Amino acid sequence: MAATPLTAEWSLRQRYLATRQVSESLCSPLLIEDYQTQSCPEASPPKWHLAHVTWFFETFLLKPYHDGYCTQFPGFDRLFNSYYESIGKFHPREQRGHLARPAVEEVYRYRRAVDHAMEALCDRLERTPDDHVLSFIELGIHHEQQHQELLCMDIKANFSVNPLKPVYRGDLPRRQVAATAPVQWHEQAGDLYEIGHAGPGFGYDNECPRHRVYLPPYRVANRLVTNAEYLEFIAAGGYGQAGLWLSDGWAHSRRHDWRHPLYWERDEADGWLEMTLGGWRALDLHAPVCHVSYYEAEAFARWAGQRLPTEAELEVVLAQKPLCGNFFDQGFLHPQPAAPDGQWFGDLWTWTGSAYLPYPGFRPLAGSAGEYNGKFMCNQMVLRGGSCATSQNHMRASYRNFFYPHERWPFCGIRLAADL
Amino acid sequence: MAATPLTAEWSLRQRYLATRQVSESLCSPLLIEDYQTQSCPEASPPKWHLAHVTWFFETFLLKPYHDGYCTQFPGFDRLFNSYYESIGKFHPREQRGHLARPAVEEVYRYRRAVDHAMEALCDRLERTPDDHVLSFIELGIHHEQQHQELLCMDIKANFSVNPLKPVYRGDLPRRQVAATAPVQWHEQAGDLYEIGHAGPGFGYDNECPRHRVYLPPYRVANRLVTNAEYLEFIAAGGYGQAGLWLSDGWAHSRRHDWRHPLYWERDEADGWLEMTLGGWRALDLHAPVCHVSYYEAEAFARWAGQRLPTEAELEVVLAQKPLCGNFFDQGFLHPQPAAPDGQWFGDLWTWTGSAYLPYPGFRPLAGSAGEYNGKFMCNQMVLRGGSCATSQNHMRASYRNFFYPHERWPFCGIRLAADL
Amino acid sequence: MAATPLTAEWSLRQRYLATRQVSESLCSPLLIEDYQTQSCPEASPPKWHLAHVTWFFETFLLKPYHDGYCTQFPGFDRLFNSYYESIGKFHPREQRGHLARPAVEEVYRYRRAVDHAMEALCDRLERTPDDHVLSFIELGIHHEQQHQELLCMDIKANFSVNPLKPVYRGDLPRRQVAATAPVQWHEQAGDLYEIGHAGPGFGYDNECPRHRVYLPPYRVANRLVTNAEYLEFIAAGGYGQAGLWLSDGWAHSRRHDWRHPLYWERDEADGWLEMTLGGWRALDLHAPVCHVSYYEAEAFARWAGQRLPTEAELEVVLAQKPLCGNFFDQGFLHPQPAAPDGQWFGDLWTWTGSAYLPYPGFRPLAGSAGEYNGKFMCNQMVLRGGSCATSQNHMRASYRNFFYPHERWPFCGIRLAADL
Amino acid sequence: MAATPLTAEWSLRQRYLATRQVSESLCSPLLIEDYQTQSCPEASPPKWHLAHVTWFFETFLLKPYHDGYCTQFPGFDRLFNSYYESIGKFHPREQRGHLARPAVEEVYRYRRAVDHAMEALCDRLERTPDDHVLSFIELGIHHEQQHQELLCMDIKANFSVNPLKPVYRGDLPRRQVAATAPVQWHEQAGDLYEIGHAGPGFGYDNECPRHRVYLPPYRVANRLVTNAEYLEFIAAGGYGQAGLWLSDGWAHSRRHDWRHPLYWERDEADGWLEMTLGGWRALDLHAPVCHVSYYEAEAFARWAGQRLPTEAELEVVLAQKPLCGNFFDQGFLHPQPAAPDGQWFGDLWTWTGSAYLPYPGFRPLAGSAGEYNGKFMCNQMVLRGGSCATSQNHMRASYRNFFYPHERWPFCGIRLAADL
Repeated sequence: MAATPLTAEWSLRQRYLATRQVSESLCSPLLIEDYQTQSCPEASPPKWHLAHVTWFFETFLLKPYHDGYCTQFPGFDRLFNSYYESIGKFHPREQRGHLARPAVEEVYRYRRAVDHAMEALCDRLERTPDDHVLSFIELGIHHEQQHQELLCMDIKANFSVNPLKPVYRGDLPRRQVAATAPVQWHEQAGDLYEIGHAGPGFGYDNECPRHRVYLPPYRVANRLVTNAEYLEFIAAGGYGQAGLWLSDGWAHSRRHDWRHPLYWERDEADGWLEMTLGGWRALDLHAPVCHVSYYEAEAFARWAGQRLPTEAELEVVLAQKPLCGNFFDQGFLHPQPAAPDGQWFGDLWTWTGSAYLPYPGFRPLAGSAGEYNGKFMCNQMVLRGGSCATSQNHMRASYRNFFYPHERWPFCGIRLAADL
Repeated sequence: MAATPLTAEWSLRQRYLATRQVSESLCSPLLIEDYQTQSCPEASPPKWHLAHVTWFFETFLLKPYHDGYCTQFPGFDRLFNSYYESIGKFHPREQRGHLARPAVEEVYRYRRAVDHAMEALCDRLERTPDDHVLSFIELGIHHEQQHQELLCMDIKANFSVNPLKPVYRGDLPRRQVAATAPVQWHEQAGDLYEIGHAGPGFGYDNECPRHRVYLPPYRVANRLVTNAEYLEFIAAGGYGQAGLWLSDGWAHSRRHDWRHPLYWERDEADGWLEMTLGGWRALDLHAPVCHVSYYEAEAFARWAGQRLPTEAELEVVLAQKPLCGNFFDQGFLHPQPAAPDGQWFGDLWTWTGSAYLPYPGFRPLAGSAGEYNGKFMCNQMVLRGGSCATSQNHMRASYRNFFYPHERWPFCGIRLAADL
Repeated sequence: MAATPLTAEWSLRQRYLATRQVSESLCSPLLIEDYQTQSCPEASPPKWHLAHVTWFFETFLLKPYHDGYCTQFPGFDRLFNSYYESIGKFHPREQRGHLARPAVEEVYRYRRAVDHAMEALCDRLERTPDDHVLSFIELGIHHEQQHQELLCMDIKANFSVNPLKPVYRGDLPRRQVAATAPVQWHEQAGDLYEIGHAGPGFGYDNECPRHRVYLPPYRVANRLVTNAEYLEFIAAGGYGQAGLWLSDGWAHSRRHDWRHPLYWERDEADGWLEMTLGGWRALDLHAPVCHVSYYEAEAFARWAGQRLPTEAELEVVLAQKPLCGNFFDQGFLHPQPAAPDGQWFGDLWTWTGSAYLPYPGFRPLAGSAGEYNGKFMCNQMVLRGGSCATSQNHMRASYRNFFYPHERWPFCGIRLAADL
Repeated sequence: MAATPLTAEWSLRQRYLATRQVSESLCSPLLIEDYQTQSCPEASPPKWHLAHVTWFFETFLLKPYHDGYCTQFPGFDRLFNSYYESIGKFHPREQRGHLARPAVEEVYRYRRAVDHAMEALCDRLERTPDDHVLSFIELGIHHEQQHQELLCMDIKANFSVNPLKPVYRGDLPRRQVAATAPVQWHEQAGDLYEIGHAGPGFGYDNECPRHRVYLPPYRVANRLVTNAEYLEFIAAGGYGQAGLWLSDGWAHSRRHDWRHPLYWERDEADGWLEMTLGGWRALDLHAPVCHVSYYEAEAFARWAGQRLPTEAELEVVLAQKPLCGNFFDQGFLHPQPAAPDGQWFGDLWTWTGSAYLPYPGFRPLAGSAGEYNGKFMCNQMVLRGGSCATSQNHMRASYRNFFYPHERWPFCGIRLAADL
C-alpha cells in the first residue's frame, strides 16, 4: 500500500461513510433470505460480506487505534475473519452459508456500532493526523469496494441457481447498438517501460514497487471480444477441439462438460439467453462475452490466431488511456457494447497471460495486513482494467486483480493481443 | 397403507388443520435466516420442509381429486418434490439450502392456498365420502408428522454448527432424577409370533402384511442405555478398539475421528456438554445417550456383552406395552431419564439389529405413493419406538423407521437385548 | 466353525496339499506381470492371494502350534494380513498392487517353506491328534478355496481392463445348447423350517447356529435368468426407468452410467460380446446372465413381476437338491446353459433379498479367527449356491456368501422367486 | 526445437543407440515385478516408459518418414501415447499400472523392432540427409533422456512405498565431506539481458525465442540449501507457521500433514533417515535438501529472509558457469554435498519463482510435436539447472523444466537469491 496523501481528514470520513452506504444500497433489493445464501464454495453470503468488511475496520483500525474500544459482538472475530491466520482461527469459507446467526438485523447493528466508533476515530484524526492510521482507513475503504464487486458476483451466482429465475433488479438500463465496430489495434513499440504503482493516490502492496520491464513490440485490441465473436468459436467446435486448449483447461472443461460461458442457457424458442443482474435476457450479440475462464479466453485467442496480452503490456497501454468506461457507477451492472472508439477500462476484467507473482522487490505490508495480497501469489492469473461491478475511484492502470484459471463467476472477459 | 376407518370426516379436517398448525408452531421460534439453512446434505432447510409437506397435499390430493384445482405457484412442483421420480424432476437434495426463493412469506402463502383448497375438498368429502381419497389425506397427515420430527432434527443440526451457540428454545422443561434405576429385563418365550400392521388405524405400507415370525427366547431391557453407561464405554477405550466394531463402522469412525456421540463437547472447566434444542447443557448422566449411530450402538452392545434387539423382538414386546412415553407432545424435545418402571415408547428411536427389508408379501402403494417407502429397502437399519420428537398419535408398535448405519442426527439411542 | 470329524489325519494332509496345488495350477497360465496387477481396489493381485493364504496357515497354525517355528520371511506378517486387526497392522488393501516385492519367486519360496512346516505339523498330529488344531487346518483349507474363487474373479477383472484383450486360458470348454427350457418352479409350503449348519462336515461360524424360521408358501425358479431374458429387460429400457430400481441402486447406476452387465461390450458388427476367462466371446443367449449387481438383480425381478428369494427360502430348497452342478471342478470357469432339469448349485451365486446379518444366537470363533466373518455383518447382501469358480467340496446348502449390493465382479446371477 | 547442426549422420545413429542403451541399463537392476508398478498416479511403470519412448520414435519418425514401415504391435499406439490428443485416444495415465500386458519381454521386442527400423532410416539419411527428419531424431533422443530421469524418479517412488525397503542399487558411490562451506553469493548487476535458446545445439521450443528481459541487480547463492539448514527450518517450527507459507501451500501441507521432505523418516534410534536409490541412509547433513515442493522451497526462503531466484535471473548466471556438476553420468543418482567452490548445474533442479509461461513470440513446433511443451504452460513452476538424474549432454543454461508447485517426487531442491 503506497503512502496516501490525504489533503483533509474530513474528506476521508466522507468517503468512508459514502463507501459504507454503497454496500448497503447494493443489498437493498435483497430479501432476508437472499442475504443468507452461499450457492458455491467460492462465493459468500451477502450478509457475510457486510459483516466482514466491518470486521476489517474493527480489527485493523478500532482495536489497535481507538482508545478504549471494546467490541460488543463477541464471536464475530472468528466468524468474519476471512483468512488472516495471524489474527486467529476463522470459520471455514465453504460453511459461511450455514450461519443463520447473527441475523441480518444484527449485522446491521454491528455496522452501526463500528461506523459510530469509526466516526469518533476520524474526529480524533482530524485533530491529530496520523498518516499510518489514515492509510489503513484508506485500505479499509478500498477493501470494502472490492467486496462490493464480490457482492455483485455472489448475488448473481446465488440468483442464477434458482429455477424460479428471480431478478435482482428489474430496472437496470441497457445500451443498445446496431452494430459492433471492428477492432482497432493499439500498437506499442518495443522498449524498456516502467510499470507498477508509484502514486499519487492509493495502490495495493502487490502493485509495488514500480519497476522496469522490457517489452517487444506488440498490439492490443481496443475493445473486448463480443458474444457474436464467441459464438463463432462455439460454432466452429471450439469446445470440442483439444488442440486449442491448455492441457489443464481441456481436462477441466471435459470434467465439467463446458459448452458455453457460465450463465448461458439455450432456449428452444428464443435461442441463447444470458442470466444478468437484471434477469434472464436474450444474448446481446454486440456486448462483450462475459464469465469465461482463463482457459476459455486462452483457447479462444489461440483459435482466433491471436493471444492474450501480458499484464505489463496491458498496463503500459491503459496508462495512456483516460480512466473512464462502464463502471459500477454507471449503473448497468452488466457489460455493454463498446463505444465506436473502443473500451479500455470497465465493462469486464481482462484475463492476461501473466501469472500472479510478486514484482521484483515486492514487500508485503507489515503485520497482518501483509496477508491481504502476498500469500495468494501462486496458481492464479492476473486480470486488469476493472469491470461494470468495479467502482471507478477504485480503479487505476496498475491495479492487479487475480483469480484461478478455471474461475468464471467474476465479471471477466477477453481482449486480444499479438506480437508486431 | 392400511385402510383407515374414519368415523367422521370433520374430525379428519380437524386433524388436518391441527397437524398443519403444529408444523408452523415448530417454526415460530425461528428467524427468517433460520428457515433458510442446510448445514449438512442430509438435512433440509425448515422452509423446504414447510413447503414440501404442502406440495404433498397438493400433488396427491388437490391435483387429482379437487376439481378445477390449478396451482398458483408454478415451479414449486420441481422445487418441493423430494424424490418422487414418477412425478417428475426434482431439485437436488444437497442444494436445497441454495434456494433463497420462494421467500418464507411466500411459502406461508402457499400453505394458506393449499389449506384453503384442502378445506374445500374436505367439505366435499363430508358430503360424498371416498375412502380412497380419505386414506390419502390420512397419509398426508402422517407424512407431515414425520417432517415435524425431521424439522426438530434439522433445526438442531443447523443450530449446532454455529459458533455463537444460538438457542432454539430457552424455555424447555427438564426432568431431574437422583439416580438411574437398574435395568429390568422383559423376558419373552421362544414362539411363533405375528408382527406387522393389521389395523385398526393407520399404518404405512412397509408395516404390511402382518405375518408370522419365529423367535427364540430372548430378553429386552426396559430402558435405554444412559449417558453414564456410555461414558464407561468411552472410558474403557471403546472408540479405539477395532475388535468391538463392525468393519464398516470402524472404517467410518476412524475416517471421521469419532470419539463421542454427535453434539457432545468436552469443556475444560465444565466437563461434558451436550447440545440440545434448549441450548448447550451439562450432560445429564441419567438421561439416555442420544445421537449415536448404529455402528456405535452395535459396538456398545458388544462391549456390554449383549446385543441389539431385532425389529421383530422389539415389536412383540412393544405390542404389550401402553403407548405412552416422552413424545413430542410432552414438550421436552430431548430424551429424559427413565421412569423407575422403565421407558418403552418415546424418548429415542431404538436401533435394531434388523436391516430395512420388505416383509414377506410386501406390496408398495399403487402409483407414485409407492415410492414413499419401498425404494429405500436397502442399506438401512430399522429403528423402533419413536422419540421425544415424534407425535404420540403418529406412533404404534409396528412402526418401522429407518436410517443408514452411520447416521447420527436422528433422535436415536441404544436398548440392549440378549438370548435367553 | 462346526466341529469337523476327521477320519484320518493323512487324508487332511492330502487335502491340504491338493488344495495348495490347485491355487498354483490356477496361476500357471500367468506371466510374472499378471501376478502383480490390481486393476480395482476391491481386487487383489494374484501374487498377494498366493501369499495371503500361506500367511493364514503360518499365523493360525504354525506360529501357535508348531514348536520352534520361526518365520524366515520378516515383514510378510504385515503385507499379507488382510484385515485381522487383532493380529496387527496391515498394508492398505488398495495399495497391494504397488508391492513389486516380494517377487513372485519369493512368494513361491514362502509357500514351500510353509508347506514344509505344515507337513511336519501334520506328522505330529498323526501321532497326537488335536481336534482344535485339526479344525484350524480345515478352516485354512476352506479359506484357500475361497481365495481360489477370488483369484478367478480378480484375474478376470485384471484381464478385462487391458485393451490388448489378452486371454487367460484359450482352451476352456463350452456347453452348447439349442434352446433354453422354460423355468420350472419349485413350490414350497409355508411352514416352520430349520436352516443353518449343524454338521456333519465343515461349516463357517456365520452359518451357525442352526435355527428355526417361519416361511410363508413360496416358489423358486429351477434355473438362473438367461442372457436372452436379461436382454429383454435392457430392450424394455430397464436401465432407464427409475421406478424399477431401489433408490440407492438408481443413484449408483446413474453415477456409473450402467447400461448392461459388467464385462459386456456392444460390437457394431458382432453384437453383444462378453469377456470371459476364455477371452471375449459372442454372448451366449442360453447361458445365465452374469456379473450383475444386487441392484440390477432386484430391478430385473421387479420388472419381471417376481422377486428375489430370501436366503432361508433358498436354503430350504437347496437342501433338497443334490450337491452338483457347474463348479470349478468342471473346468468351464464360466456359467453354462442350464440342463433341461434346471440348475441349482454352481454356475453363479444367486443374489438373495436377505441382508447379511448374524443368525439368532450367533457366536463368532474365539480369537482372531472371529474376525473372519462376523465383522462384515452390515451393508452386504447374502448370495447362495456357489458358482463355476467355487470348488464343489467347498459348497453346501447352508453356505452364506456376501457382497455389497453394488458389486459386480463376483460370479453372481439372478434366480427368481415369488409368493404362493 | 531449434535447428540442430549435425556434422555426420553416423554420430546421430551412435547417439541414438547409446541413448537407447542407457534406458535399458537403468532397468537392468529391476525384476519383472518392478517394471510393472505405478505407486502413484503421476508416476508411470518402468515398462511403460521403455515402450513410450519407443512409440515416440515409431510415431514421429518411422510412420511418417520410413517407407513401408508397418507396425507389428497393434494396440501399442493407444497404450503408449502419453498425451498427444492430435494423434488419437490414449490409455488413462493413472491406469498404466493395470496393464500387465504387453509383457516386459514383448516391450523389449518392440524396442528391438523399432531400433532395427531406425537404423535403416539412419542409413537412408546418411545417403540423403534431411534436416527436418534429423531434427526429429534429435528430439526423440532428448525425449528419451527426459524419460530416463523420470525412470529414476518413478523407480524411487515405487521402491519407497514398499515396507520391505528394497534397494534399487546397493553399489552407489557417495561423496563424504567434513563440513559445508558457507554460501558465496554471485552478484549480478541490473541490466537488460538476453535469455532463451538460440543455438548452437539442440533446444526445446519452449526455450525460444531468445529475447530481452530487464533484471534489477540481484544475487544468487552458489550452492543449494543443505539438509542441516533445512533441519533448522523444521526445528524452528516452519511446518507449523502459516505466516511463512503461500495460502495454497499451507492448505496443501495441512491436508497432507507434511512435516518434512518426501522420503524422510524419523527413526527412534538412528535419527533422520532418507530413502535413496541406494536404499535408506542416515541423512547427510552436508548434502542438499531434496524432494521438497515449491511450496516448501518458497516457505523456507521466506523464513531465511531471502527469496527464490526467477528463471531469468538463474539463466543469466548459469550461462556464465561451466556446464558441469553431479549429473546422471557421475553415477551418484543422489545429490551430493557441494564442492568448496559451489554447485551450479546438476545435483538438484532448482525451483524458481517463475511460473511456466510462453516466452514472448513463442511458437510451438508444428504438428503433433507442438503438444510436447506448449499445452502445459499453466499452473506449473519452472525449475532450472538439471539434477543427479539428468544426463549432462541433455542440459544447458536455457533449459526449462516444470512441475506443479505441490510435486515433490522430482529431484528438486532450493537455491536462495535476493535483491541487491
